[in-house]
Amino acid sequence: MKRRDFLKKSARGLAGAAGAATLATTSTITAPAHAKGRTSWICVSAFGKAGMLGQAITHFAEFVNQASAGRMKIKVYHGSELVGPFEAMDAVQSGTAQMGFGAPYYWAGKSEAISFVAAMPYGLTAQEQNAWAYYGGGIEIADKLVYNPLGLKFLPMGNTGNQMGGWYKNEINTTDDLNGLKFRMPGLGGEILKTFGVNVVLLPGPEVLPALTSGAIDGTEWIGPAADLGKGMFRVVQNYYYPGWHEPATILDGFFDLKEWEKLDKDLKEIVIKGAAATNLFLLSRFQAANNAAMQKLITDHQVKLRKYSDELLKAIGERATTVLPELAKRTPEATELFNHLVSFRTTMTEWSGYSEGSFIESRLSAKFKPI
Amino acid sequence: MKRRDFLKKSARGLAGAAGAATLATTSTITAPAHAKGRTSWICVSAFGKAGMLGQAITHFAEFVNQASAGRMKIKVYHGSELVGPFEAMDAVQSGTAQMGFGAPYYWAGKSEAISFVAAMPYGLTAQEQNAWAYYGGGIEIADKLVYNPLGLKFLPMGNTGNQMGGWYKNEINTTDDLNGLKFRMPGLGGEILKTFGVNVVLLPGPEVLPALTSGAIDGTEWIGPAADLGKGMFRVVQNYYYPGWHEPATILDGFFDLKEWEKLDKDLKEIVIKGAAATNLFLLSRFQAANNAAMQKLITDHQVKLRKYSDELLKAIGERATTVLPELAKRTPEATELFNHLVSFRTTMTEWSGYSEGSFIESRLSAKFKPI
Repeated sequence: MKRRDFLKKSARGLAGAAGAATLATTSTITAPAHAKGRTSWICVSAFGKAGMLGQAITHFAEFVNQASAGRMKIKVYHGSELVGPFEAMDAVQSGTAQMGFGAPYYWAGKSEAISFVAAMPYGLTAQEQNAWAYYGGGIEIADKLVYNPLGLKFLPMGNTGNQMGGWYKNEINTTDDLNGLKFRMPGLGGEILKTFGVNVVLLPGPEVLPALTSGAIDGTEWIGPAADLGKGMFRVVQNYYYPGWHEPATILDGFFDLKEWEKLDKDLKEIVIKGAAATNLFLLSRFQAANNAAMQKLITDHQVKLRKYSDELLKAIGERATTVLPELAKRTPEATELFNHLVSFRTTMTEWSGYSEGSFIESRLSAKFKPI
Repeated sequence: MKRRDFLKKSARGLAGAAGAATLATTSTITAPAHAKGRTSWICVSAFGKAGMLGQAITHFAEFVNQASAGRMKIKVYHGSELVGPFEAMDAVQSGTAQMGFGAPYYWAGKSEAISFVAAMPYGLTAQEQNAWAYYGGGIEIADKLVYNPLGLKFLPMGNTGNQMGGWYKNEINTTDDLNGLKFRMPGLGGEILKTFGVNVVLLPGPEVLPALTSGAIDGTEWIGPAADLGKGMFRVVQNYYYPGWHEPATILDGFFDLKEWEKLDKDLKEIVIKGAAATNLFLLSRFQAANNAAMQKLITDHQVKLRKYSDELLKAIGERATTVLPELAKRTPEATELFNHLVSFRTTMTEWSGYSEGSFIESRLSAKFKPI
């Protein structure tokens, strides 16, 4: 089935199920309502309804609906409710939806540059990504080089924070241990690991645990303790490595049909912009708050071995990143310009975060506070 | 002049200058308008109009005005425009304003616990403070123990991020060097330094540089490079220390007349809540983005010597913090409960941030990316 046919069929199927007159044909779905000054949008999400990400986009839509007091309504369809999770950007580009929610590297097929918007190995922390996005020209350059050419407008709408390095069947100490390893790692990090002889495997979420169980892969990265606990990798492998050099933090993207975006009144634009920023902050805060408790549960209840990548490995992979990523960035002028923008910003952040967060996080270990 | 008289006079003076009928008497200022479903609030800020903090509260009010499409209007008076900067909380409590913006430790005279809301020496980073506020029960416990008893509702509305340790006339290497030092440091950090024989001085912002110039003080902490550059301390002293153990990050507070807050319709509450969260994220991002460029300017153009506190000093002060802060927290049951809440949260964050941000910020130094 062709993608466009699939989208139409999904939309029709859903309309039929809902029995709603306004969803009766594809054409009414694709024509957002502006009658009586009211804007109706469909938002398609790449994530399931129940998890933190699904809850976040639901909450965002509720906010827009409530704050606009009837002037705008966003109806969210979670992953596979209207289109498949990885069809969300297609759905917005084709006019089936006016807004989508996902992670930029899900749309790597559409742009060589877009994975750099999500996360750069050895790149920026979450706080630095936000500084880049809001006050470093990040949103503007991502729009100019990536989203606008796709007919879209971009806003950050969440961040995972620093991820974990991943789950390994065996200990990994040197670059020799990487040679021949079958490891699941999508995105730019996987491209770096390939150069060390890793057999990099790409698998959608639901296939990860079965592949690990059958021995088809020797390990996998996922997100961090809060998300990984529920995923159940600890049932099969126990070596859990940090830090997540491949995704020091990952931006989640809200993307909007550019024509619909430009049609929005300024007050509604402001509601969407502030709602997206709040969603961004709330999601990062929620991951941050949940991660350590999940980590303790993994260690205490499930005998997971928390391990730090050796300095030798971190240094070797980091040095390799400085040759592999420029090669990937050279594929298109847009990727080159975005890479250079990020690298310049990173240079200044690396110094400041070293003086501030880095130095502080180390020094505070001397103060062992206890409740009184 | 009594504070209340001062408030009334300021309000009248301003009303006269503005010549606006709705501001003609104190009583109309203190009675917020709900006529025709419209809510009119006055917001008093502790900060000047021109700086990043003044711009942030202006932008917040514009958002509320625009997003509510006529249902709510917030008029901002910056520091000294209606009442003095440190009178903002009084003004909200007395009904002169319905909302205020400042830093929690500005209101230390009102609560023994409130300084712990702002920042705890050797405590939480900005990202951790946000995790505490939004998903660690922080807003709820600060409301319960501190703000509600003062007749107020609290929301975080900004964060400075990690501050710098401060400016010193001479190098500081051991705890002996602290003995007899005349140093400006407000808040909990100053209480710790006192126990090392520091003569801790409290000075409002405008008096800091003159005191440093005259030799009345040997040094001062302020905020971080972006804010300190404009303040001009580098003209007098050159030793600039990190990390800011005394304020690893500082929450700025929005506070609302509790009765007015509870009267707000749910949609307007949501607009204020999301607007405050966005302001929180934008301010932190702006400080983060600006700090390193300012630091480079200080070093290159103004010959500032960037120095790290010695491990000996950081360890000694950190250990002392674990005895001094509990003593301060024991002064009231509310301070005790808030301290314990923060310390429990900090314990889990210290571990997770060590695995994630701390470990990553160190390891990425091996990847020296250059633009291509």
